[in-house]
Amino acid sequence: MASLSIRIDLSPEGRIGPGKIELLETIAREGSISAAGRAMDMSYRRAWDLVDEMARICGQPVVASQTGGKHGGGARLTAFGEELVARYRAIERSAEKAVRAQLRALETETRARRAG
Amino acid sequence: MASLSIRIDLSPEGRIGPGKIELLETIAREGSISAAGRAMDMSYRRAWDLVDEMARICGQPVVASQTGGKHGGGARLTAFGEELVARYRAIERSAEKAVRAQLRALETETRARRAG
Repeated sequence: MASLSIRIDLSPEGRIGPGKIELLETIAREGSISAAGRAMDMSYRRAWDLVDEMARICGQPVVASQTGGKHGGGARLTAFGEELVARYRAIERSAEKAVRAQLRALETETRARRAG
Repeated sequence: MASLSIRIDLSPEGRIGPGKIELLETIAREGSISAAGRAMDMSYRRAWDLVDEMARICGQPVVASQTGGKHGGGARLTAFGEELVARYRAIERSAEKAVRAQLRALETETRARRAG
């Protein structure tokens, strides 16, 4: 099935796409950047770089470290990070809904020609 | 200004995004893969690989070579290639229109927090 993926260009600072948003969602679920990296089969360094890049793009932190506690060194999303994820997913849903019929048509054409 | 870019995932074959579509449009305008590559500051090899990848993704050629003639070795889009470009641009317009207000809101939030 054809589907749409979106990137939001917050020019000139950079771009937010499905990989970065999934990373934020995984950090929220796993409670740390390193656990999120492992869950996504990504090095800690790569996960950290993406989090840092999002902060630069948005001009503010998207993840806050939590020190102390039983496991120490955890991380959670900032209020803005949570908002960014929610906004992105809402924009994605709107875009998908708007183009659904056109995607089906493209898919049908491609398949028909493939078979033809 | 925040803007949206889209990728169409024709799974499992692969993905069509703004770079590939711009390449097709440039081939149509320039009349050859090599001239399109130069215009987009891309090697001939890279341009050719992208054209080949699109053909695999769609199961049919998107570019046809034209041999002979004054300049020989030119290329044009196939009927399907033209249709793919038109479909992609139409889908892009629908998606942009659908999310315009949400993008503005995200942009305003990001800017407000940056300034704040």
